[in-house]
Amino acid sequence: MADTTTRRRRGAGRSGGRAGAAARRGDAVIEQMPWDPPVNIDRPTEPLEAEGVAAIHDGAMRILEEIGIAFLNEDALRLFREAGCKVDGDVVRMDRDFVMEMVARAPAKFTITPRNPDRTIEIGGRNLLFGNVSSPPNYWDLEIGRKVSGNRDMCRNLLKLTQYFNCIHFAGGYPVEPVDIHASVRHLDVLYDKLTLTDKAMHAYSLGKERVEDVMEMVRIAGGLSDEEFESTPRMYTNINSTSPLKHDQPMIDGCLRLARRGQAIVVTPFTLAGAMAPVTMAGAVAQSIAEALSAIALFQYVRPGIPCVIGTFTSNVDMKSGAPAFGTPEYMRSTQMTGQMARFYGLPMRSSGVCAANVPDGQAVWETSNSLWAAVQSGTNIVYHAAGWLEGGLIASPEKFIMDCEILQQIQRYMQPEVTSTAPDAIALDAIAEVGHQGHFFGIQHTQDRYTSAFYQPFLSDWKNYEAWESVGGIWTAERAHHLFKQIIASFEAPPMDPAIREELAAFVVRRKEEGGAPTDF
Amino acid sequence: MADTTTRRRRGAGRSGGRAGAAARRGDAVIEQMPWDPPVNIDRPTEPLEAEGVAAIHDGAMRILEEIGIAFLNEDALRLFREAGCKVDGDVVRMDRDFVMEMVARAPAKFTITPRNPDRTIEIGGRNLLFGNVSSPPNYWDLEIGRKVSGNRDMCRNLLKLTQYFNCIHFAGGYPVEPVDIHASVRHLDVLYDKLTLTDKAMHAYSLGKERVEDVMEMVRIAGGLSDEEFESTPRMYTNINSTSPLKHDQPMIDGCLRLARRGQAIVVTPFTLAGAMAPVTMAGAVAQSIAEALSAIALFQYVRPGIPCVIGTFTSNVDMKSGAPAFGTPEYMRSTQMTGQMARFYGLPMRSSGVCAANVPDGQAVWETSNSLWAAVQSGTNIVYHAAGWLEGGLIASPEKFIMDCEILQQIQRYMQPEVTSTAPDAIALDAIAEVGHQGHFFGIQHTQDRYTSAFYQPFLSDWKNYEAWESVGGIWTAERAHHLFKQIIASFEAPPMDPAIREELAAFVVRRKEEGGAPTDF
Repeated sequence: MADTTTRRRRGAGRSGGRAGAAARRGDAVIEQMPWDPPVNIDRPTEPLEAEGVAAIHDGAMRILEEIGIAFLNEDALRLFREAGCKVDGDVVRMDRDFVMEMVARAPAKFTITPRNPDRTIEIGGRNLLFGNVSSPPNYWDLEIGRKVSGNRDMCRNLLKLTQYFNCIHFAGGYPVEPVDIHASVRHLDVLYDKLTLTDKAMHAYSLGKERVEDVMEMVRIAGGLSDEEFESTPRMYTNINSTSPLKHDQPMIDGCLRLARRGQAIVVTPFTLAGAMAPVTMAGAVAQSIAEALSAIALFQYVRPGIPCVIGTFTSNVDMKSGAPAFGTPEYMRSTQMTGQMARFYGLPMRSSGVCAANVPDGQAVWETSNSLWAAVQSGTNIVYHAAGWLEGGLIASPEKFIMDCEILQQIQRYMQPEVTSTAPDAIALDAIAEVGHQGHFFGIQHTQDRYTSAFYQPFLSDWKNYEAWESVGGIWTAERAHHLFKQIIASFEAPPMDPAIREELAAFVVRRKEEGGAPTDF
Repeated sequence: MADTTTRRRRGAGRSGGRAGAAARRGDAVIEQMPWDPPVNIDRPTEPLEAEGVAAIHDGAMRILEEIGIAFLNEDALRLFREAGCKVDGDVVRMDRDFVMEMVARAPAKFTITPRNPDRTIEIGGRNLLFGNVSSPPNYWDLEIGRKVSGNRDMCRNLLKLTQYFNCIHFAGGYPVEPVDIHASVRHLDVLYDKLTLTDKAMHAYSLGKERVEDVMEMVRIAGGLSDEEFESTPRMYTNINSTSPLKHDQPMIDGCLRLARRGQAIVVTPFTLAGAMAPVTMAGAVAQSIAEALSAIALFQYVRPGIPCVIGTFTSNVDMKSGAPAFGTPEYMRSTQMTGQMARFYGLPMRSSGVCAANVPDGQAVWETSNSLWAAVQSGTNIVYHAAGWLEGGLIASPEKFIMDCEILQQIQRYMQPEVTSTAPDAIALDAIAEVGHQGHFFGIQHTQDRYTSAFYQPFLSDWKNYEAWESVGGIWTAERAHHLFKQIIASFEAPPMDPAIREELAAFVVRRKEEGGAPTDF
């Protein structure tokens, strides 16, 4: 990919033609699948026997009982003390009865209702939901051709993709950090962009009181809700990471407690990199991750019984040669599946991710991301963070990668449709087989004609032309095809409708909070 | 990839450095996993309930009983008549009792012993074996940069890759058709190349009596075997496709009967493309595929009870817009899984494939191939044809794709190692977690030191460097990295040892058979 300029130029003719045709048809750039969050119909892949589940559970419980978790949050320490846990300095030890009693309070399923109620998502059970990449500080696309700091335009474009693709069900954190906006007011500008450019379920970073409170207020305003309505059911969520090993930081816990007290949802995702912040053995890394997650969930359930909580996994391994994190590895897949078994053991909804270590949207990026996405499917994951757009271990967001990932996500959506594996008599199709007999073909028969428009998955990015036809329109590789689509989608993007009065109220809130100085940046 | 020249030049420094380092070390180009064919420890993914299995079985049996299969082979028609089946013209109808009785004779497991007995493979049970791409007429690599007809050099290079990679367990058909060799003698030259460049299990095309007999003779010579020894256990195999719908051709059946009579293994793989040669509904396409396969397997079991037979699947769907075949689709994955359930129902080992429709080794190639390889894993497939090197629906072989696929195959090998998911006390690692506590890291502790060299999968092609380090050595995308490895592997390739007397005997056989005119080309 040394010469992206040449490659872009070669593809221009085709992409222009396609965009033109779409404009003539007056429809969208691509024909995509409808909004229809998949239901995972497969039995999960379960590498652990019952004894293995028991061993990891016992390991996690002994970590909580004997080693304890550090909570660098006074509020949390006070609450744990009040609940009868042992608190030594900032280390909290809790017995397994307490933990299990608290965790049992968490619902197995809950909904998040964004400003557009048609985009309500149900988390838990067999639901499988995908969100955009979150939080990379950097951006890469084929046109720029190198890694650059994220800015607000890039962030807005990735938010447009988040909204555009029906296979993206919720908005994660910032799809790229807009580092051109001062950190004190960044959350205000990005949330304004998120709430006006998308109508999907919203996320707040737990990075200090002001940010969390501002985001909750903006989500409330965008939904046209009273405080009471906002708090009556989850409207948004936060995601926190523990500071492995065995530690929760002040702002993360603070943010969660604020959301919990207002009835909003919490995802707790330890980042236990085996061999670095967790044991080099995957079961140990999973046990530690479980302990870290459950300690926080227990706290939130103590404070607000029944508050929706999701157990997240981010257990992967390092490259033992360099110490660099690896993603989508065989060990990553197995730890995700093991965590899935544990999540079901605790009756908690689960989060995992779509991840890779690759630096550009090439073959490696796809096999690592495919591995992680299929591990999510196999583990019974309910929400998949970073499902589209992630590169370089989360340090880069890329629109080409976003679009390539959406192709895979749509395939997973189709894969989960029960009609694919129907064995009803008209699916066995004995009459059609008899009709065609030993000589003909099935193209023209009625059984085919009745079904052909919906019989098979239709990709929007995979190119199924033969080599010669593919070459005749430029011989364009996948990442470059994705780049052309990116340009077209952005050019034709229409924001979801929003009441002008609400938009004004949101804008006024942003202006006022900026005048007040936004949030402190010394978190 | 418009400018492969530039891109190759940019990468040269790095690859040269790597090759130099390898040469200095005096070891292989890459550190790869050892020869250790995976055992599939996962429960298969089973989309069908028991009633679904029964419905497809009943559909297949009714096809055999009511519609029948055409056998364009007089020998087969005579044998079916002798067995009491109804033969009308070339259409054979057989009742389910006969079919099930014959199929029950096939072993659930068997071995193939190639000239190097250390490369013996066991087919069936939970064994998972990978073979090279077979039969593309065309070739593509980054240096050539376009699709060209295959030749003997290309074929030899791909055979070297087949031998080099420990994750390739058997040699399929020609990894590319060397169309520069006349068809009458092509099998002689390629088998000479295959038998001298590799020591893995061999395949014969069932394309006429002379070819099949010549290949059996050459495999016998290469193994230093008497006729009796050759016939005492499978030394090789053939793979046939039916001519869907519902037909078996003369040379395919002829070849299988020849192998069956000499105790060699047979893979029967209908090519039922849903919407073209099979019903547009996947269960119908699977039922038809099962019927086509079982009809041939029943014949072979009638002729030679207990002869090793494998049921193959090649059920995919067409692109309903163009009629072109699609591969690695959601429908492909589900049909492979469904066929896996049927194979277990019949007690037969199973074959599936690693396939894609992509024209170059790009992102699409990887997601389609990953989908098909993981579907093979999930289906309980025993042998995976085309597991490395396939492009453009099997019309192109590519060394870069071969090497990229081997990276994925190695990951599957690692994924299946039980130690990854061990929950033994030292894997839960409570002492290590206690030792590190709330502040440290796990890099330096004894628990990590004792395990770090083997704790995690080490890729040979994935690049886990961060962006800056990756960029500083040329910013090379996956396909180009694979190209560099290809050059190095070929440059340093050493053929497996062969007794000079055997080599001479093989060469003399080729000379003699060429003098005799080889095989007719009007098959």
